[in-house]
Amino acid sequence: MQIGVIGAGDHDLTSDIIALAEQVGEGIATEGHLLICGGHSGVMEAACRGAKRAGGTTLGVLTGYDKSEGNEYLDIQLTTGIGHARNVIVASSADVLIAIGGSYGTLSEIAFANRLGTPVVGVRTWDAESDSGETLLMERVDDAEQAVKTAIFTKR
Amino acid sequence: MQIGVIGAGDHDLTSDIIALAEQVGEGIATEGHLLICGGHSGVMEAACRGAKRAGGTTLGVLTGYDKSEGNEYLDIQLTTGIGHARNVIVASSADVLIAIGGSYGTLSEIAFANRLGTPVVGVRTWDAESDSGETLLMERVDDAEQAVKTAIFTKR
Amino acid sequence: MQIGVIGAGDHDLTSDIIALAEQVGEGIATEGHLLICGGHSGVMEAACRGAKRAGGTTLGVLTGYDKSEGNEYLDIQLTTGIGHARNVIVASSADVLIAIGGSYGTLSEIAFANRLGTPVVGVRTWDAESDSGETLLMERVDDAEQAVKTAIFTKR
Amino acid sequence: MQIGVIGAGDHDLTSDIIALAEQVGEGIATEGHLLICGGHSGVMEAACRGAKRAGGTTLGVLTGYDKSEGNEYLDIQLTTGIGHARNVIVASSADVLIAIGGSYGTLSEIAFANRLGTPVVGVRTWDAESDSGETLLMERVDDAEQAVKTAIFTKR
Repeated sequence: MQIGVIGAGDHDLTSDIIALAEQVGEGIATEGHLLICGGHSGVMEAACRGAKRAGGTTLGVLTGYDKSEGNEYLDIQLTTGIGHARNVIVASSADVLIAIGGSYGTLSEIAFANRLGTPVVGVRTWDAESDSGETLLMERVDDAEQAVKTAIFTKR
Repeated sequence: MQIGVIGAGDHDLTSDIIALAEQVGEGIATEGHLLICGGHSGVMEAACRGAKRAGGTTLGVLTGYDKSEGNEYLDIQLTTGIGHARNVIVASSADVLIAIGGSYGTLSEIAFANRLGTPVVGVRTWDAESDSGETLLMERVDDAEQAVKTAIFTKR
Repeated sequence: MQIGVIGAGDHDLTSDIIALAEQVGEGIATEGHLLICGGHSGVMEAACRGAKRAGGTTLGVLTGYDKSEGNEYLDIQLTTGIGHARNVIVASSADVLIAIGGSYGTLSEIAFANRLGTPVVGVRTWDAESDSGETLLMERVDDAEQAVKTAIFTKR
Repeated sequence: MQIGVIGAGDHDLTSDIIALAEQVGEGIATEGHLLICGGHSGVMEAACRGAKRAGGTTLGVLTGYDKSEGNEYLDIQLTTGIGHARNVIVASSADVLIAIGGSYGTLSEIAFANRLGTPVVGVRTWDAESDSGETLLMERVDDAEQAVKTAIFTKR
C-alpha cells in the first residue's frame, strides 16, 4: 500500500507536529507500507525520518529537476520539474493520505484528494466549508497511531 | 490584465450562481480585461458567455488534448493534457482570481493562489481555517459588480 | 486558428534564423491567426516581435510562475510552473506548429506533436529516423512565406 | 541508482525488442538498481517483467489517475494525471536512461534527457540531426548486457 503524508514544508514547525509526523512515518513503515510525500523538509522530512528509523521505504515527489532538493531520508526521488502541480501526483498516487497540520499547499492536496476520491485522514489540519455546505471529506483523528490505523482501514 | 474566474463545472448549479458568473464575465469584458478559466461548463461557461456578450476575449485552460472539451464561448483554447494540474496554471496565470461558489476543484485553486500570491476575490465560496489559525486569503464581496471592481483594485 | 512557433530560446542564433522567425510571426499575424509559443527569447521572441509589428496577438506558455520570464512582445502570458513539460502544451494547443531551427527542446515539441497528431511545418530544423524506419512527420519548406502558407493549409 | 527504461508501449513489437527489454530489466535488477519507466505495456512491461524475475523493484510513472493503467509488474505506481508530460518526469528522475527502440514518445524522452543532462544509452533507437549539426547525446550499444553496464558507468 502507498500511504501519502502531507503537511507543511518549513522548518519552524512546533515540536508537537514534528513528533506527530515522525510517529506517523514510523507507523507506516512498521506496517510495511511505502511512504509517499513531497520530499521536502518539515512534516515531510520528519515522516521520512520516522519511516527510515523503522526500516521502511520512502518516496519523494519533488518540485524541481535537482535531487538535492529532497530531504536526506528519501529512498526514491522523483524530480518532476512541474512545481506545485506535483501536489496532484501525491494526492493521486497515494492509496490514502494522512494530513498533518499544514498550510495552503496541504489544503490544495486535500482538495485534490477529495476531487479525485483519495481517502484522507487528518490530524490537526484544515477545516473548510463551501457556501453550498460541502465540507472536507476526511476522517479526523487525534494521534499518530489512530492516523495510521485509520489510513490502512479507510484505503480506497 | 488577466482575470481568472473559478467555480464549479457541473450543469446543475443554481440560477443565482449562473447569473452571478455571467455578470462577472460581462464586467471583466466591459472593463477591457482578458478572462481566463478552466474552459469547462457551469460557472466557467456562464462567465465566458457573459464576457462574449460584452465583446470580451476568453481563454480556457483545458484538462485534456481535445478542444471539443471546451465550452462554446472560448476564443483561445489551451489543451494541456495535464488534467487537474491545470488548476495551478489558472491560479498562477491570473493577475487576480474571482471565485464564485465552487467545489473541491475550486478550493484547490484558491489554495494554490494563496500559496503563489495571486490575490483572490470571493463571492459565496469556500471558508477554511487550519489548526494553526491560518485562513483563506480572500476579499469577500456580495455581488458581481463588487467582485469585478475589487479584483481590478486588488491586482497583484 | 492557433499557430505555434517553436525554436531555440538562446540569444546567439544566426541572423538568418532570427529573420526567418520574424517573418513567420509577421505572416501569422497578417493572416489573422494567434501566435502561440514558449514565450522565451531567441526564435520565440523574434516571432512575437514580427507578429506584433503586423498587429497580431501573441501568447507565451512560460515554464515558471513569474511573468517577467516572458519576452516583451507577449500579449498573453500563461505562467504554468511546470517547467519543460510546458512544451507539451505548446505542441498540443497549436492547430499547427512551425518549427524553425531548434535544439533539444524543439525536438521534444516535434516529437510530442507527432505523438499527438498536431501537424508540423519545418524550416531548417531536425531530421530523425528510428531503428524501425519511422521519421519525423513534417512538411519541410524553405522560407517563411511557404511556412505560413503550408501551416494554414495543413491545419489538422 | 534509478535507471529509466524507455521504449514503445504497444503490443506488436518484434520479439527481438521484447527480449532485449526483458534482459535490460533483468540486468538492472541483478545489479541492484531501481527500474523507472512509463508503466505501460510493450518495452516497459517487458523490462519490468525481467526486473521482477530477478527480484528487483519497479516504478511506473503513469499518465492517468487510475492504477489499472499500469502493467502487472509494477511495485510502485505514480498516477500523475499529467498525460504525456509524464515523459519529462521519467527523463528527469532517472540517473541514466536506457532507450530501446521506440517511437515518438521515446524520442520526446531522449530529447528531454538531452535538454536536462540525463545521460542516455541507446539500443536500436532513434538517430537525429538538427540543421545546425546537433545530434542526440547518447551512448549507442548493441545488446542488453552492454546497455546495463554502460548505463551504470555513464551515470550523471
